[in-house]
Amino acid sequence: RTYRVAVVPGDGIGKEVVPEGVRVLEQVAKRHGFALQLDWFDFSSCDYYLKHGRMMPEDWKERIGRHDAIFFGAVGWPEKVPDHVSLWGSLLLFRREFDQYVNLRPVKLLPGVPCPLVGRKPGDIDFMVVRENTEGEYSSVGGRMFAGTEREFVVQETVMTRVGIDRVLKYAFELARRRPKRHLTSATKSNGISITMPYWDERVEAMAKAYPDVRWDKFHIDILTANFVLHPDWFDVVVGSNLFGDILSDLGPACAGTIGIAAAANINPERTYPSVFEPVHGSAPDIAGQGIANPIGQIWSGAMMLDHLGEAEAAASILQAIERVLAEKTLRTRDLGGNTDTVACGKAIAAAI
Amino acid sequence: RTYRVAVVPGDGIGKEVVPEGVRVLEQVAKRHGFALQLDWFDFSSCDYYLKHGRMMPEDWKERIGRHDAIFFGAVGWPEKVPDHVSLWGSLLLFRREFDQYVNLRPVKLLPGVPCPLVGRKPGDIDFMVVRENTEGEYSSVGGRMFAGTEREFVVQETVMTRVGIDRVLKYAFELARRRPKRHLTSATKSNGISITMPYWDERVEAMAKAYPDVRWDKFHIDILTANFVLHPDWFDVVVGSNLFGDILSDLGPACAGTIGIAAAANINPERTYPSVFEPVHGSAPDIAGQGIANPIGQIWSGAMMLDHLGEAEAAASILQAIERVLAEKTLRTRDLGGNTDTVACGKAIAAAI
Ligand SMILES: CC(C)[C@H](C(=O)O)[C@@H](O)C(=O)O
Ligand SMILES: CC(C)[C@H](C(=O)O)[C@@H](O)C(=O)O
Repeated sequence: RTYRVAVVPGDGIGKEVVPEGVRVLEQVAKRHGFALQLDWFDFSSCDYYLKHGRMMPEDWKERIGRHDAIFFGAVGWPEKVPDHVSLWGSLLLFRREFDQYVNLRPVKLLPGVPCPLVGRKPGDIDFMVVRENTEGEYSSVGGRMFAGTEREFVVQETVMTRVGIDRVLKYAFELARRRPKRHLTSATKSNGISITMPYWDERVEAMAKAYPDVRWDKFHIDILTANFVLHPDWFDVVVGSNLFGDILSDLGPACAGTIGIAAAANINPERTYPSVFEPVHGSAPDIAGQGIANPIGQIWSGAMMLDHLGEAEAAASILQAIERVLAEKTLRTRDLGGNTDTVACGKAIAAAI
Repeated sequence: RTYRVAVVPGDGIGKEVVPEGVRVLEQVAKRHGFALQLDWFDFSSCDYYLKHGRMMPEDWKERIGRHDAIFFGAVGWPEKVPDHVSLWGSLLLFRREFDQYVNLRPVKLLPGVPCPLVGRKPGDIDFMVVRENTEGEYSSVGGRMFAGTEREFVVQETVMTRVGIDRVLKYAFELARRRPKRHLTSATKSNGISITMPYWDERVEAMAKAYPDVRWDKFHIDILTANFVLHPDWFDVVVGSNLFGDILSDLGPACAGTIGIAAAANINPERTYPSVFEPVHGSAPDIAGQGIANPIGQIWSGAMMLDHLGEAEAAASILQAIERVLAEKTLRTRDLGGNTDTVACGKAIAAAI
């Protein structure tokens, strides 16, 4: 078995952690008897933008659209290119054009990771955030009027479609059904955001009818973020709109110790297009170039990629290797109180495979 | 000095905590030599809605619009009236029609309150959330199309005006200037929400020029929520849009132990209209009628009201009384590990004045 993977390191620490992700992937491939054909791309980076005036070449869809998966680092360097330009010219374009309507993000407190919440141990925090990834608050409809005057204003539509909501809810309910707790929590804000959010609630209620075996509840996003801190053990599968999912999948990993090790899968469940696997953290210009970034988010996203490709055992062995390395203080990177740098941590995980 | 205050308990535990707030206000008025003329209103409640088919009488603006302040409990009882109907028929209407464009919410870890964050002590968490309170994501523009079909979709505009943003930023920068740290953090999401949020950033940058003595930074809302958990000591004044402010002002108090004691002021700084003072918690139908709700959020909001009315010393003495009662385990309500119920806790604080 050979998988064709497009490797897109992007900006900042993306360039440092992606090679470690690849190191681990190649090691696990050897062990589990499959091959990876890796094609590296330098676009989807602000440096590419500075040279070419755009984030990606015109034919980007042909260049990476036929791969089995895309292994992505991070993009964004606001001092070079405004964030909304760089992101909408690459990552957000992948999600939209490759119809990756599910953004899946595990939140798990692992042994050895210092938890900022009092009295929580591994096992207490273990849930999945399922984020709608193509519409909602991240829309491209809107504009500015009376620019430069006192009357200036901007508007931007939040757009939610029945098709768009239902398909991600279905994914989330199916996922909940496969987990032991069979519990789904929906993030809403229907008390304040009076048109889109009541509609979201409606669709959740309708979908829930098809899953009588899944217990479900909903929280307004404000109190939901509070409950992530106060009761992280309440959650199993949490589903939210594009923005709410974005927030919850940074907050969740922070409650579980650090966003430095969190991973994400941008999934096109129909497999019409390749899915994108990336760490939750960004390009972190402030620490880029120093070789100190924690590579575990990237490596974990490699495990999610293998899972998606059907190599569940190989994926599990990456997670085990991550847990083994995290359990050993000296092997951790400095952000987690250890001594290793990016490369040494990557090597330790590869060695633990 | 006599202040005319409209008292609006609303729904659920609002009816239980407001009398305790009033108890403390009357006590402190006696001590500090001013008088309160209290007018009680039963509207802005779901029971009123069930009787009258609307949340408030037609002449609500005349009935409570000429008071010096509105002392508000909580509204909402989703089993009786859908949240977006009850909220947009009362609380959100006050904010909009009385032009209360600042929602001010202190986040403070108090002695005696168990903090969910490892190693944080009183003094470590002490900041203010300034929330835009009239526009943004809480808009009334949008609708539904193709209802009941597969093509169904909803849209809702986020609306941000220069006037609307600038006035709340000005309030936030002025507040930051008066605090020892002189530090302002802006909540944004300009990397993903590509029209309104870059505009918000623009206005922050423009306003910051007038406050060279205030150090400022910005975070995207996702990582900002993570930083509330990981680095709550980083913050002094945090300013955000209607939705982001809403989220941060539930999450902040949760990081400081509980939203049960958090207070909010909905302020019309020009004093053309009365301001509304309310606890951050809602009507909590699940515990309503049991007399166990923590009244401190309501009482603290009374302190914010007195501050607004110019009775700074009286306000300070309420806060001191709250701190004294919280420091004594047995005087705390059960949600904070103590023994008191709503009334006993209110009486203890009144006695401590
Ligand atoms: C009840 C709800 C509409 C309200 C809001 O979102 O503004 C509440 O959460 C608040 O923070 O005052
Ligand atoms: C970089 C940004 C646009 C992106 C998002 O908001 O989707 C990131 O925060 C993420 O979660 O993948």
